[in-house]
Formats: sequence, C-alpha cells, structure tokens
Amino acid sequence: MDLKNKNIIIDFEPISRRVLLSSDKPIYDLLSELSVPIRSICGGSGTCGKCRVLIQSGKEYFILPTSAEKEFIDQGDLDYGWRLACQARIDTSKLHLLEKTESSKFRIFLPNELLLEDFKILTGGLNKGINIFPAIKKYYLKVDKPSLEDPQADFERIIEELKDTSKDFSKNAQLDIQFDLLKDLPNILRESKNEITIVVRNNKTIIACEPGNTVEDNFGIAYDIGTTTVVGYLINLNNGRIYAVASNLNSQTAYGEDVITRLTFIKNDKENLNILNSAVVNDLNEIQNIICSKANVDPSQVYEVSIVGNSVMHHIVLGLDPTNIGLSPFVPVIQRGLNVPTKSLNLNISKYGVAYIAPVISGFVGADTIGVILSSKIYNEKDLTLAIDIGTNGEIIIGNRKVLAVGSCAAGSALEGAHISNGMRAAAGAIDSLKINQETLDVNFSTIKDKKPMGICGSGLVDAVAEMLKSKILTRSGNFNKELINQERIIKNDKAFEFIIAKKDETSLGKEITITQNDIRQIQMAKAAFYSGTRLILKSLGNSKLKIKQIFLAGAFGNYINSANAKFIGMIPDIAGENIHQIGNAAGVGAQHCLLNVELRNKAEQMLKKAKYIEIAVKEEFQKEYAEAMYFPHHNLDYFPNLSEYKNIRKR
Amino acid sequence: MDLKNKNIIIDFEPISRRVLLSSDKPIYDLLSELSVPIRSICGGSGTCGKCRVLIQSGKEYFILPTSAEKEFIDQGDLDYGWRLACQARIDTSKLHLLEKTESSKFRIFLPNELLLEDFKILTGGLNKGINIFPAIKKYYLKVDKPSLEDPQADFERIIEELKDTSKDFSKNAQLDIQFDLLKDLPNILRESKNEITIVVRNNKTIIACEPGNTVEDNFGIAYDIGTTTVVGYLINLNNGRIYAVASNLNSQTAYGEDVITRLTFIKNDKENLNILNSAVVNDLNEIQNIICSKANVDPSQVYEVSIVGNSVMHHIVLGLDPTNIGLSPFVPVIQRGLNVPTKSLNLNISKYGVAYIAPVISGFVGADTIGVILSSKIYNEKDLTLAIDIGTNGEIIIGNRKVLAVGSCAAGSALEGAHISNGMRAAAGAIDSLKINQETLDVNFSTIKDKKPMGICGSGLVDAVAEMLKSKILTRSGNFNKELINQERIIKNDKAFEFIIAKKDETSLGKEITITQNDIRQIQMAKAAFYSGTRLILKSLGNSKLKIKQIFLAGAFGNYINSANAKFIGMIPDIAGENIHQIGNAAGVGAQHCLLNVELRNKAEQMLKKAKYIEIAVKEEFQKEYAEAMYFPHHNLDYFPNLSEYKNIRKR
Repeated sequence: MDLKNKNIIIDFEPISRRVLLSSDKPIYDLLSELSVPIRSICGGSGTCGKCRVLIQSGKEYFILPTSAEKEFIDQGDLDYGWRLACQARIDTSKLHLLEKTESSKFRIFLPNELLLEDFKILTGGLNKGINIFPAIKKYYLKVDKPSLEDPQADFERIIEELKDTSKDFSKNAQLDIQFDLLKDLPNILRESKNEITIVVRNNKTIIACEPGNTVEDNFGIAYDIGTTTVVGYLINLNNGRIYAVASNLNSQTAYGEDVITRLTFIKNDKENLNILNSAVVNDLNEIQNIICSKANVDPSQVYEVSIVGNSVMHHIVLGLDPTNIGLSPFVPVIQRGLNVPTKSLNLNISKYGVAYIAPVISGFVGADTIGVILSSKIYNEKDLTLAIDIGTNGEIIIGNRKVLAVGSCAAGSALEGAHISNGMRAAAGAIDSLKINQETLDVNFSTIKDKKPMGICGSGLVDAVAEMLKSKILTRSGNFNKELINQERIIKNDKAFEFIIAKKDETSLGKEITITQNDIRQIQMAKAAFYSGTRLILKSLGNSKLKIKQIFLAGAFGNYINSANAKFIGMIPDIAGENIHQIGNAAGVGAQHCLLNVELRNKAEQMLKKAKYIEIAVKEEFQKEYAEAMYFPHHNLDYFPNLSEYKNIRKR
Repeated sequence: MDLKNKNIIIDFEPISRRVLLSSDKPIYDLLSELSVPIRSICGGSGTCGKCRVLIQSGKEYFILPTSAEKEFIDQGDLDYGWRLACQARIDTSKLHLLEKTESSKFRIFLPNELLLEDFKILTGGLNKGINIFPAIKKYYLKVDKPSLEDPQADFERIIEELKDTSKDFSKNAQLDIQFDLLKDLPNILRESKNEITIVVRNNKTIIACEPGNTVEDNFGIAYDIGTTTVVGYLINLNNGRIYAVASNLNSQTAYGEDVITRLTFIKNDKENLNILNSAVVNDLNEIQNIICSKANVDPSQVYEVSIVGNSVMHHIVLGLDPTNIGLSPFVPVIQRGLNVPTKSLNLNISKYGVAYIAPVISGFVGADTIGVILSSKIYNEKDLTLAIDIGTNGEIIIGNRKVLAVGSCAAGSALEGAHISNGMRAAAGAIDSLKINQETLDVNFSTIKDKKPMGICGSGLVDAVAEMLKSKILTRSGNFNKELINQERIIKNDKAFEFIIAKKDETSLGKEITITQNDIRQIQMAKAAFYSGTRLILKSLGNSKLKIKQIFLAGAFGNYINSANAKFIGMIPDIAGENIHQIGNAAGVGAQHCLLNVELRNKAEQMLKKAKYIEIAVKEEFQKEYAEAMYFPHHNLDYFPNLSEYKNIRKR
C-alpha cells in the first residue's frame, strides 16, 4: 500500500508536531524520525514499559495490543487507548476503512514524563504563597444507629454527628444536601455500616457521601483555558500539593486561530457554539483523565474545578453565546464569578461537583486577567505596578493598593511566532536568545535544548530586534539602515530586506533563518500596542504624577523574554531591571489559588468592582500614541532616558 | 357487540364512581344512569357547551369530535382530551383494538364547575389570615442599552436596573441567576428591546425572564397530597387570591389503599418506587393542567409549588426510598424542609421553578401535620390545645405557646367509610347525620344532597354509634344490649347483631342500611386510638396539671363530624362545645400559607425542632390506655364528668 498517497497525518500532542505516515513502523520510530526524543530505558524493545502514550483519536486503526503491552498496561487503560510507543503501530490492513475526510483522525498524546523536557508548555508560575482554605472539605463520621428512642432521619443524624465531630460547624449551622444524592444516602449509610465520609462545599452543602474513611482523597483541578493552550493542575485540596499537570492544544484551534475568527464562526451559525464548546470540554476531560491516571486519582474524588480564561473562552466553555463580545460595544453575557454544577458543563468529575469560573472584567479582559491580579497580588503593592500578560491577546493591568485599571491590546500572536517568516513556538530547536557582534554583525545564538535551529521564538525575536537596533542594522522607525545593506548577512528578497540570523549550514532546515522587514513590522505593532496601551491606561487614572515603579511579566512569553531587550525596543517602560519581575503562568496560578482559598473568590468579585476598564482603541489619543510608539523605543526619546545607545541610532 | 361481555369499566374522577359500559351512549347519559347530576343548560342537546369533561385515559377509543364540540372547544383542548359530555361517546367499532388487560383504561375527569356541588372533596379550610410575603416576586425593568462608555454585561446591567427600580434590594445585594437561563438572557433582552420582567426567588436568584411587563401573572400552586386524595390550589402570589382549585384521587390507590400496603409494594421491588412516584407526579401535573386551564393561566407562569403530605407521600413524591419508614425504628431519609427544582421532580411548571416541601416530623407524622400546625397557629395559643387531623391516618398535636408534642395513631380508614359494611365516602346519598328515637328506636337521618341513601359516611357513623348508646342499643363495651334484641330494627345476621338505620324501601340499594357489630368494633378501635394517643402525648409533656382546654378538628371528616357526638363516644376529651373548632383542610391551608409567606418556612423548621415526637405504640402504658379507651366513652367515667347520660347505660 502506498501510504503517502493515503495522505495520513498523525498529530502528536501537546507538542503540536505532525507526521505524514509513510510506513507502518511503531510510534516510537515515528517519533525518532521527527527527532522527538522520548524516555525509554530498553531502547524500544518492549521490556521496560516506560514509553506509554495515549492514542486519543484513531485507536481502532492500530494493531491489537501485544503481549508486552498486556504485561505493562491494565486492560482498562488499554481499552482507553494507552499503548507502548515501541509496540503500537497502525495496522495498514485496516486503513481502507478510513474515509477520505478522516485523514486527520490520528492524534497521539505524549505524557509529560515521556518527553525529555524539550516540549513542555509553561505550566509553572510564581507562587506567592497561599493559605489553604478550600471550598471543599471532607469529614469522616461514625454515625449513631437510629432507635425507637432516637428515630432521627438519616440526613439529620449525619448532620448531628458532623456538628459533634467538627468545630467547623456551629450547633445552629444549616446544612443542605444535593437533592439527588439524598436518594442514595439511606443505602450508602446502611451498606457502610454507618461509617462514612461526607464531602461538604462552602461549609453548607453535602455534595458527596462515600463509604469508609476517604478524607485524604480530596482533589480539585485548576484549569487555565488559553486561546491556544489548555492547562490543568490536579491539586490535593487538603494540602495544596500539585499531584499532576497536563496541557493540551485547545482543540478549538481547528476552527480558528484567534478569538475573532471563532466569534465569527459562531456568529455565522449559532450551532457552532456547541461545536466549540464540545471541543474545549473534551480537552478539559482529556486533561482530567491524563492527570488523574498519572496520579492514580479516581475522577469521582475530584469535587471542584476552577477555571480561568479570556472572556471568549469563558463564554464558550460555559455555553454562553459570546457573539456580543465581538460586536461594539463588546458586551459579555455576565461578568461576576459563577458556580456551576460540573454536570451542567459536561465535565466528568464527581457527580455533584461544582465548577468555579472566575469573573470577566469586559469583553476583552477576561477571567485570566482576574487570575493574574489574584496571583500577583498587585492589590497589595505599595508602588504603582504594571502587569502584562502576553498570550495570543495581551492584557495590561496597572494597579497598587489604591487603584486598579485594566485594558486589552491586540498584540496579535506575533510574539508566539505566528505571522513571522521563521517563527515557531518555544520548543526544542527554537532560537530563544541571540547577540549580534556590532563590528562583524556575526550572530551568536542559543536554541532550546541546544538543537540545530529550526526557527525563532518570541524571546529570540525580541532579542533579534534589540540587537539589530544596537548594531544599527535597523533605524528607530524599523527600516533597514541603508548604510549597511552591503553587508553579507543583509539580503534582499521580494524587494524587501532580510537579516540572516542563522546561515543555511547552521540550521536543520536546509535554508537560512532570517528576520524580514515584515517580521520587524509585526514586532513593532505588537510592542506599540503594549506601550501605547500602558500609556493610555496610566493617563486614565487621572493623576499625571503617577509613575510605574514595578513591572510583572506574565505568560509563557513574559517568562522567557529578555526583559532588558523588551525595554530596549520600547515594549515596556524604562525602569530599572531590578524592578521587572517575571511571574510565569500567573493566570494558571490564579486558578490554583481560587481552588485552594475560597476567600480569593470574594477577592475576585472585589477586584471586578474595583477595576476600571479602559477601552484603549476608542480613546481619542489612541491613534497618536500608537503611531509614536511604533518608533524604537518611542518617537519621544525623553520617555526612555536610560537607553543611551539610542543617541547613535538613526531615527529614519 | 355485547358490551357487557367486554367488561369495560369507566372511572369517573374525582368522584370515584365507576360504570360497567353497556351501551355506546354519550358520557352525559352514562352519568345520568349513575345519578350523577351535571350542569347542562340545554339538557344534553349540544347547544350550550357547558358540559365539558376531560377524557384522561382512553380518548382514542371515542368518536371524533362533533361539530358542536368543535364550536365550543379549541382544537388544542380537543387534542388534549376535553370533550362535551353530551356529544362524546365510545366508538364501539374501535373497541376490538382494546387489549384485555386494558379494561380499566377509561378515565374521565369531571371538573368542579360541572358537578352540581354534590361530590366536592373538602378543599376549603379556616384561613386565620396571612401576610403576603412570597418567595417569588416579579419586577418590570426598562434596562439601559450598553454603550462603549458603559459596556456592562447583560446580567450586571439587569441587576443594576433592578437595584435602581426596587427598594427590595440594597446596593450591595448579591443576586444570581439560574445558569441555563443565563444562556437565553442575551436574546430575550435584545428581542424585547430591553423591556423585560424578571422573576426573583428569595430576593436572590433570577429564575425567569420574560419579554414585556408580566408582573401581574405571578402564580404558585399549593398541593396537599393525601394518601387517598390530592388537592391543588392555584394562587396568585402577588395578592394571595385563589384562582382555581382541583382535586383528584391519588392514583397510587391502584397499588394499595393505605401507606403500609404501598411501603410493602416498594419493599418488594425498589422499581415500584418509580411507579408510585410517577403516579402521584402525573396526578399533580393533571391537577396543574386543570387549574391552569380553568383560570386561563400559562403553566410557565407558575413559578413555585408548595407541597404537604404525610411522610410516605412526602418521600414518594420526592423519589426518596420510604422503606425504612415501614421498618422499626421508622426512620425517614430527611426531616427538614426542602427546596427542589421542579424539573428534578418532573413537575411541569416554569422551567426553573422550585418546589418547597414542608418538613416531616417522623416516619408517621409528616409534612401535612406541619401544615396543620402552621395554619392553625397552635403555637400562638395561650391555652393548651389539641389538634386532630383525621385522614386515612390520624395525627394528634398537643401544644400552645410553650409546648408542642405530636404523635400518630393508626385510626384506620373506618372514619372514611372503609371496612364498614355500608360505609362510603362523604358524597351525595351518604347518610351524614342521624337521630334515634329513644322510645321507638326509629331513625331520623339526613343524607348529603337529600338523595335516597346509598350508604353511611364517617359523620353518620359517629352519630349512629352515639345515638345507639343514648338509646341503650349498645352497652359501653360496644356490645349489642341483650335486653333490646327483640326490637324490630335489631336483626341477627351471620351470628352477629345489626341495627337497621334505613329500611329496604327507604334506600336506593334495594336492601337496608345497617350498622353491624363489626362496624361498631371498627369505630371503637379508631376512637380508642385517638383518645389513648391523646392521653399518652399529654402525659409525655411531663406536667400532670396540664389540661386540654381547646380542640381543633382538621381534615374532611373533622369538618363534617358532629363534635358533640365525637365527644360522646369518647373520641375526644370532654370539654365544652364552644371550645371545639372545626378548621377544615388545615394541611392544605398550611401549604397555601407556605406559598404565600416565606417566613412560615422558617417557622416550619422551628416547629420541626420544637415538636416532641411521641411514638405512641411503644409506650409502656399503651396497651392499658388503649384497652380502657375501647369503652364508650372510657373505662373510667371520671374522665367524662359532663356526659351524664352514661349513668343509665350498661357497661357490659
């Protein structure tokens, strides 16, 4: 069979690598061909059982499990799609069953522990410390048996025992119970001989009842739903320990790369809301399966999830129509935080589990921003602080103990490598930092995991532009400096100049990696959006004496960027480097904090009320501010007094 | 076709009359044959349209609607089963389609307004007055349109307008909304051009949102689920006005006459719980359809129901397993009052409507007793008051401002006419009161609606026994007085004596109506249960000086009984007649009050805590007390010092 003609593509997640199937080799070999190194002690001979992968789509087209797989993997897991990479291979004799339209049916998930660190999505974040005060608590009770002298009802007996056992409840506390759980209560109580563990939410509602003592098994999941990436953290709610983390590409990506495209998709046909909703709900459930199976946790003992995400992701996961977010005046359906039965959201945790969804501030400043505010604790800062969350969209927060203002800027996805000629995500082989010799213009670069370069990621791009400015290859207006165009590394393609970062023989692409004039424009637009947005939000605080004293950089990009260079190109204000902090996936940490401390949910509502939302693009001064910020570092050099290098760089 | 051989029975509800189909005459004629007079101005010629009936089962076997029916009845109502009694008749040509087992398929509901008063089930009750303070309130809002300057979310805009419009909400009030309703909100808001009416429950949760101003249309239904009869009251929650009342036999009756039989039915197979649950839920929905259609109210504008019923009815309607109520120590699943989405109970009111179910005190003292306590306001009485609710089961309440104790007694259904040789329910043709001439022993009786007698109902039975005592036909031990057995009206059948109340030619039965020795025993046991129960509950209050000063008689029987005779036979304590009050269907009135005043639901919880439940039958003294109370009026005449007639009545 000529497999190439079948045009069968296998997607490997979460690393977003695809391969066109050309042989029926085991998955292990396909990954080797893609240069994706995976953990295997026995080298693919089927004797160590370490190379477990999950076939998420198309498992019916694989050969039946081998004896090696049966030895290392439970039948339940095999049925679910877990296989050994070194054993499982596509059964080409079954491929004739595949319809043409199903060519993208194959999706294989590589668990974090399988990957040799190269491809991990940023899941960590600066944890400023948190008191454990979860909504969910478990109590082990030995309930008295009823008698003719004490014929109290089952529910009331349990409540009485609970009040006797725990100081969390006053004698007059009014507890209630999930109505459908009440139906099971008499049986659970009698079958467990009156020794049960009950799960209480918000000191108020019994949401589960389990036989015996299961107090230790108290779990929640914090989800951060990005436009591109979904991350889930499995957390023990008793002690705050993270048991497992997994991430996945947001499957909605298939229907549109950014939120605007997805909003249009829904506007065209309201049924499409269900498609996007199912896509992300499946992602959440898959992540749940992975982290629960990794940590050997029963999903029925996950009682709560917390969710952050931008406003469109927020609406879609809730099944709320986000159309009006895409139409002026960009109105969400609801802003305040919500507690929704996970059953209503089709999330497969405990039967009567609850999802907490953090509030959204506006159509373009979402629950993820609330997450950043909560985890960065910007509201405790004395100094006026700028927090920037750089994802597919950019959010700007300016605040301290007294004030809080937020806005959103269409930074585009340039900083994630999209629309950049040699752009790529921050993965192995990406140029992530570089220096240019100002005499020779030679480039000294580093790549993630020291692989031969195959592209350039966001932090590399910022370095490239900063270094090209310092080397006077670029003028402050972002044009190539005509005085230097005879240099070997500056070439002209399609009437525009390009600068060679890595020469043909240095790369794994068989061609050079360059920065084009268009790449420069993309970066200019992104950094101008951030800087002008920051200026306009600052102005809106109405006190011209206010100055930004501190910067938090959040998000994957914010974490890996060279902040001195971000400042050099004029993306962020000119303040001392010691006051610029990289705080990682602050939105995800915010979701974790909401899960672990229920008081932060009240804090979130306070922040929602306090935050002044600035619609940056409708401000009268926007056009002028944005145009001026297109210059490196700015039209007005007085705003960047410490960047003395610019004295010698041409403006045009 | 020989219809008699087909054995086709038609049930007429709510009057519980059956007819064996012998002709294909219209329903009107069948009712005439049964001597059920119905309202008809034109006398059955099809020109007045007044004789509307609802065919609840078997409508497909009737002839198609005639032109007269099409003239008076909407197509929708015709489809639903509404017909004119003078037109609709069974189409015998379709009967071959009927399977043998379906002989009881025919059920026809006669609306209250059709019946000429004879058959009405007691639905009224003494209303002690109530402040209107319902859980459900409606608010008409003109919501501001969003703008770029004020891009608040839909939900938050509505809440802000609500706070501006109504003083019911403080500026800091935290409202929420039914999650699924949130999905519809953006559309309703825009399609109604921002003029909407919202429905708020407990000043807290938005449960409906309607276009335009619908504030006036704010309804609830109060249900009283008896073992035998279900009653529903459609009430406007703004003003407390009852718009319509309907009652139905409890369809569970098909599976067992009393609660013990139904408990056994469930114990034998847990699936049977679903059968009984569906039966009563259908009854509630049918009543809802009838009262809504009577009052021309859209069921989607019924937002709340309140339910009272004994503990077994309470459990079954909630779908809770009542098995343990039937096993010592008779433990319910839950006691406290519940608020349950009507959707979870399959009740067809507003999509996000809520059912309030009053608390149950014990396995045998249910939510109906709480209803009696609330509507009788026994907790406000200065004097110690006895309240007796006489239904298929009997509940005894003793209380005042300070104390409250309750118990249940197995009074049996003798007082409803069951297990009595000529017993019948209180319907037309029932002997409901009588006097015996102490010289001639001639009987002077009255019947309901002055029909020729066809049986004797509860109040008639009490009168009969009291009069037979006063005439010395009975001794105080309940035996026929041997000195009088030669009288014409005392006959011997099957070795036991009977007393003729109505002679053969006086009745419509073609035979005499008598009171048998067994009938006397049934009454003795019932009255002994009430009296001994009252004694034991009184004793349990622990203060021997406490004396009952006042009596409330509740329930249908309690309402129609001659209270002097009830006292004479020793069913209730010997207090002055002016202190004995008949309070009607107090349980149903309690349900209405809970619907109209939400504070009474807290009161109900207080009463649940306050009420001392006495398990009468396990008391050590029970056997003695019961045996002594079997005497008329009691073994110890000192307990009934005012009944001087007993001086001349033999004890044995």
